[in-house]
Amino acid sequence: MLRAAALVRRGCGPRISGPWRRGRSRAAAEASAALPARGRRERVLTPESMNPQVKAVEYAVRGPIVLKAGELEQELQRGIKKPFTEVIRANIGDAQAMGQQPITFLRQVIALCTYPNLLDSPSFPEDAKERARRILQACGGNSLGSYSASQGVKCIREDVAAYIARRDGGVPADPDNIYLTTGASDGITTILKILVSGAGKSRTGVMIPIPQYPLYSAVISELGAIQVNYYLDEENCWALNVNELRRALREAKDYCDPKVLCIINPGNPTGQVQSRKCMEDVIHFAWEEKVFLLADEVYQDNVYSPDCRFHSFKKVLSEMGPEYSSNVELASFHSTSKGYMGECGYRGGYMEVINLHPEIQAQLVKLLSVRLCPPVSGQAAMDVVVNPPGPGEESFEQFMREKESVLGNLARKAKLTEDMFNQVPGIHCNPLQGAMYAFPRIFIPPKAVEAAQARNMAPDMFYCMSLLEETGICVVPGSGFGQREGTYHFRITILPPMEKLKTVFQKVRDFHVSFLEKFA
Amino acid sequence: MLRAAALVRRGCGPRISGPWRRGRSRAAAEASAALPARGRRERVLTPESMNPQVKAVEYAVRGPIVLKAGELEQELQRGIKKPFTEVIRANIGDAQAMGQQPITFLRQVIALCTYPNLLDSPSFPEDAKERARRILQACGGNSLGSYSASQGVKCIREDVAAYIARRDGGVPADPDNIYLTTGASDGITTILKILVSGAGKSRTGVMIPIPQYPLYSAVISELGAIQVNYYLDEENCWALNVNELRRALREAKDYCDPKVLCIINPGNPTGQVQSRKCMEDVIHFAWEEKVFLLADEVYQDNVYSPDCRFHSFKKVLSEMGPEYSSNVELASFHSTSKGYMGECGYRGGYMEVINLHPEIQAQLVKLLSVRLCPPVSGQAAMDVVVNPPGPGEESFEQFMREKESVLGNLARKAKLTEDMFNQVPGIHCNPLQGAMYAFPRIFIPPKAVEAAQARNMAPDMFYCMSLLEETGICVVPGSGFGQREGTYHFRITILPPMEKLKTVFQKVRDFHVSFLEKFA
Repeated sequence: MLRAAALVRRGCGPRISGPWRRGRSRAAAEASAALPARGRRERVLTPESMNPQVKAVEYAVRGPIVLKAGELEQELQRGIKKPFTEVIRANIGDAQAMGQQPITFLRQVIALCTYPNLLDSPSFPEDAKERARRILQACGGNSLGSYSASQGVKCIREDVAAYIARRDGGVPADPDNIYLTTGASDGITTILKILVSGAGKSRTGVMIPIPQYPLYSAVISELGAIQVNYYLDEENCWALNVNELRRALREAKDYCDPKVLCIINPGNPTGQVQSRKCMEDVIHFAWEEKVFLLADEVYQDNVYSPDCRFHSFKKVLSEMGPEYSSNVELASFHSTSKGYMGECGYRGGYMEVINLHPEIQAQLVKLLSVRLCPPVSGQAAMDVVVNPPGPGEESFEQFMREKESVLGNLARKAKLTEDMFNQVPGIHCNPLQGAMYAFPRIFIPPKAVEAAQARNMAPDMFYCMSLLEETGICVVPGSGFGQREGTYHFRITILPPMEKLKTVFQKVRDFHVSFLEKFA
Repeated sequence: MLRAAALVRRGCGPRISGPWRRGRSRAAAEASAALPARGRRERVLTPESMNPQVKAVEYAVRGPIVLKAGELEQELQRGIKKPFTEVIRANIGDAQAMGQQPITFLRQVIALCTYPNLLDSPSFPEDAKERARRILQACGGNSLGSYSASQGVKCIREDVAAYIARRDGGVPADPDNIYLTTGASDGITTILKILVSGAGKSRTGVMIPIPQYPLYSAVISELGAIQVNYYLDEENCWALNVNELRRALREAKDYCDPKVLCIINPGNPTGQVQSRKCMEDVIHFAWEEKVFLLADEVYQDNVYSPDCRFHSFKKVLSEMGPEYSSNVELASFHSTSKGYMGECGYRGGYMEVINLHPEIQAQLVKLLSVRLCPPVSGQAAMDVVVNPPGPGEESFEQFMREKESVLGNLARKAKLTEDMFNQVPGIHCNPLQGAMYAFPRIFIPPKAVEAAQARNMAPDMFYCMSLLEETGICVVPGSGFGQREGTYHFRITILPPMEKLKTVFQKVRDFHVSFLEKFA
């Protein structure tokens, strides 16, 4: 997708990558092309006539390799023999699909809100009922079925603000600066939509890390903004170096107006946790160069290295003195999908904005109002995430047990993943300080690169397709996230249960060794 | 908003309407402007630097009049005396906020899916449990908390297809042509996003009815497409006349490439139900002129006039013979938010596409995958809407009682609304054949028009603001939907309970009579 965005920028026109054209579509297209000319006139909407910005979008996390995984699953179901018995979808951070159990308290609260008759049931704890009553009282007609305010239910925004203040050691948060969203993706898309303007060399440039989470490049393509890459330092545990930000900004000024800087911390797909010093450097850079900061902090609960701690950009900003804290514009994002709850399907999230122009905040509300409101059950899920049972409450112990079990398992798997990958010759993996992915670097022999080119595939796509076809393990090639020219990686989640994850590593190792032999 | 879009089209640059600039924002802006220059540098994101297409967006249903309603509610809460004791929000089709009770069966199924422990509870009926088990079995990890396929859960798409086939008297529907969405708005936005392309006179024109539901004009602004108005015939019960389509298309070809036609049936805000003959004319027009049809059919269950019947565009298309049925490209939209269930907060919906280019269907899936998936609880709600209890099932009788009660009440209120408005001198209201709104035409005396102009307001905005301030009744001015020059209307929902609705009409009548006297 980086290539596609670059092509758009250079005016060579967008392209669609090969694999999207494949499968069912190709066959159906040929079938319809075979109709007599009289019966079939040309369509209004064709790959040639469609929105070229949409055509340029790529999203590897659910891209061609995942379509292939689906095909393999169907073939297995039809009894077709494979060298494996199941497809393991390690391509996406989808905890509950990997068997993680929901946090009981969260589901109790949402069930009570959904079907308030249950408020009379003795099988639900009092603290869950109290939360549900509070949410319902703030909903129109006391129902999850009413639209909420476009910005989100007010008492939930208040709970989010209280959570942020607690998290940030007392730095206050204003509920009017909180916008509940349909997952974090919705908030990121919305603020980028407002930020992008200008034409030619004045077109808005958006600085994103490489490797990045491909939502960013996809939205940049869709909005016709200019993608400006800054590279994370793989040799230094994927740290962000402010000199690299300066380089990227300087070069970008030749062809666009770079005024937005996206940071993902903890990193996706790279798993690093930023040091406080680094964050201060970034904020100083944003202040000095006048860029708008987007802080993707959806993995704020997912920190595993004992040497690392999550700091929010909001907190660091507020502690750098008024010159910074009253000037740097910041939007920060959180989600119900990650952390220890993994409630991806509820599409809950929030965005906090700092130092936004008051008229822009009104514009934000206006823009959100067109889509009416985020799903109210997702808003309720977000409420439980920021307002979980406290000490002394009936559900506290069970909640803590469940939470610590999830996070403890993830920490063990993070360590295991690093160790296992680094035992394989030709694979190097940085420590997984946080988030829920490994992004190991893989050596691909020149003969395999040639074989990939012969198939018109990126070398790491060829590697991952081979891995999928031989082992059933579905991971995402590094080219879907971006990587330095000539280096190859893949992203794998650490969400499968421990025993299954061990099998995965075993299989990846065997595959890798035989891949190296085959293309030696 | 029509004006804003027109300005963009004519290259005069977008504008932001006055009221969005007001309120809290203005005061805060002044406060921050008062900071010493040293402490406050200019922001990156300002009303001047923001995306002009977003700035041009207007959405009256949640616009300035609704902000004013919120202010009045807060003043009432603070004990400030008003000529009324409550604000009645008749601006939006939000059934449950108006006291409509959820359909029990729907909520039971969602509660069971949310908290599967309840599957063992004797207080839930077996048919609800069976539905819940079926949905959960199709979810990753058997949980609503997993991401679904981007197109939606497969068995739910199958249920949608089966529903469509039943609704359309056996015309088959393909689950692969169904896309579950985050409310209907999401589907409409997504397909328009793909359709819009070109520059200058080749820019995509989108034909929309006037009056329209302002999602359309908002999305057209946001995408920088060209809005092409066709006028519904108020003198003829808001019927669509195909000659007016031809006029609009012909004139539009001078400045854009009109290739999309949006139809809302039953009409919002106008409440008409299209005749089959009219639909055939529209389809012939689409075929002849090569335009892509968008059929907004979210009110398909809301038909009240005994002389009217809902026909889907899909069905009419399929019955017009292969020349049409295998050629005209169609996307149709439905939602959980309207009908008899009114589950707005769940943000459930679906889109069915017909005759789409196979590669475009792959592009659709790709684009949807960037946002991962629609809320899974909303998908579950959609499933119950298309797959309700059938005869012989445990919940059938209660379900039918609840459904018929809601629809019966709406039919009575539709008739009452027409009768009441037409008794008021200076108000004319067409029959409410379907949907859930009245859009009466109001006479505004020249002196009131002058008074409005002196306040820099549209005359109908002035009328509706006065109505709100004097009676607490919140309705949306016709200018938010578009209307013929020199005519004035407002949109009011018929969702308040019968007794409250009668009070509303009483108050509107008294207000209108005194308004006419005041400005005589």
